[in-house]
Amino acid sequence: MKYPRGIKKSYEQPQENTSYGNRGMTLEKEINLTNEYYREIDLAYIYKKPTPIKITKVDYPSRKQAIIKEAFFEMPSTTDYNGLYHGCYIDFEAKETTSRTSFPLANIHHHQIEHIGNILRHHGIAFLIVRFTTLNLTYLLLGSDLLEFLDHNQRKSIPLAYFQEHAFLIKDKLKPRVDYLSIVDQIYGGVTK
Amino acid sequence: MKYPRGIKKSYEQPQENTSYGNRGMTLEKEINLTNEYYREIDLAYIYKKPTPIKITKVDYPSRKQAIIKEAFFEMPSTTDYNGLYHGCYIDFEAKETTSRTSFPLANIHHHQIEHIGNILRHHGIAFLIVRFTTLNLTYLLLGSDLLEFLDHNQRKSIPLAYFQEHAFLIKDKLKPRVDYLSIVDQIYGGVTK
Repeated sequence: MKYPRGIKKSYEQPQENTSYGNRGMTLEKEINLTNEYYREIDLAYIYKKPTPIKITKVDYPSRKQAIIKEAFFEMPSTTDYNGLYHGCYIDFEAKETTSRTSFPLANIHHHQIEHIGNILRHHGIAFLIVRFTTLNLTYLLLGSDLLEFLDHNQRKSIPLAYFQEHAFLIKDKLKPRVDYLSIVDQIYGGVTK
Repeated sequence: MKYPRGIKKSYEQPQENTSYGNRGMTLEKEINLTNEYYREIDLAYIYKKPTPIKITKVDYPSRKQAIIKEAFFEMPSTTDYNGLYHGCYIDFEAKETTSRTSFPLANIHHHQIEHIGNILRHHGIAFLIVRFTTLNLTYLLLGSDLLEFLDHNQRKSIPLAYFQEHAFLIKDKLKPRVDYLSIVDQIYGGVTK
């Protein structure tokens, strides 16, 4: 396939991308597998929301078939994952960074921060899962600690030290890969931080 | 625009479609407005999930722009709407039928029924909103009553009489249009059915 001016390329579904960091899987793929595992063992029903797309042109080559011929990615207004765990509403966003020192806040849109605030105010559980891929460290940062940081800082990134102090390290496991619900249990299941 | 063999046509976003029944708005559009209203008054944070789409080709005419050139609709594995209300996980599917006598079950996929069962078992609130457009009647049918019907019937549709007996009529209002949370309050807020 020709890539005129080097800018045209074929597209792979995000979950099929491979970063070759952390056992060759993206955080998104690992979280999807984790959520599948949680469903298999009937523990929790948490899903990734589809990417919002604005469709502008569709062809119908037959009555039963529709092919989207033109569409555009839209900015998500909420977080990527939500669902149900032990009667609790769970809501989170997952992000990777290659930085060794801080998590750039440009990764999180204003709407998403607002959304996390709404969820907390209405008694849902909201958090970020942030992976420092180069360091191979994955943290769960509670929404309240994210908002706390934003309230008291003008910085454009959250230093690794803030994660070390306030967030919870999610240890690598084989199954499930990113066992974030064990952290939720730790936090909300009576064990104090 | 030419429509070769009458099967090619331009596409409008589902929420822009107009049925000219019920004050010219589809149920989906009315529920979206209702959810917006609930957010405006800080009552509940319930969103429609984006339609799942499998992207197979993307062009990048510039570094910042991506145009999807080929994609396909995928079958949703869960329901269309979910979110948070008073600390409760809310999950539902909304469907219209032009039938005057029954709601065709072909409207609800097997995966969605399974999903509703999962949500109920894990203490979420799950239901259908069904509008009989010709009769201009909109019902909230609890997930438990849907599963009860399916357990005891081999029928391919749920008769209107079952809705009249087991479901809750959502009265037309101006704002919000489809005030389904007032029914949730009735059911779960202490008022018995």
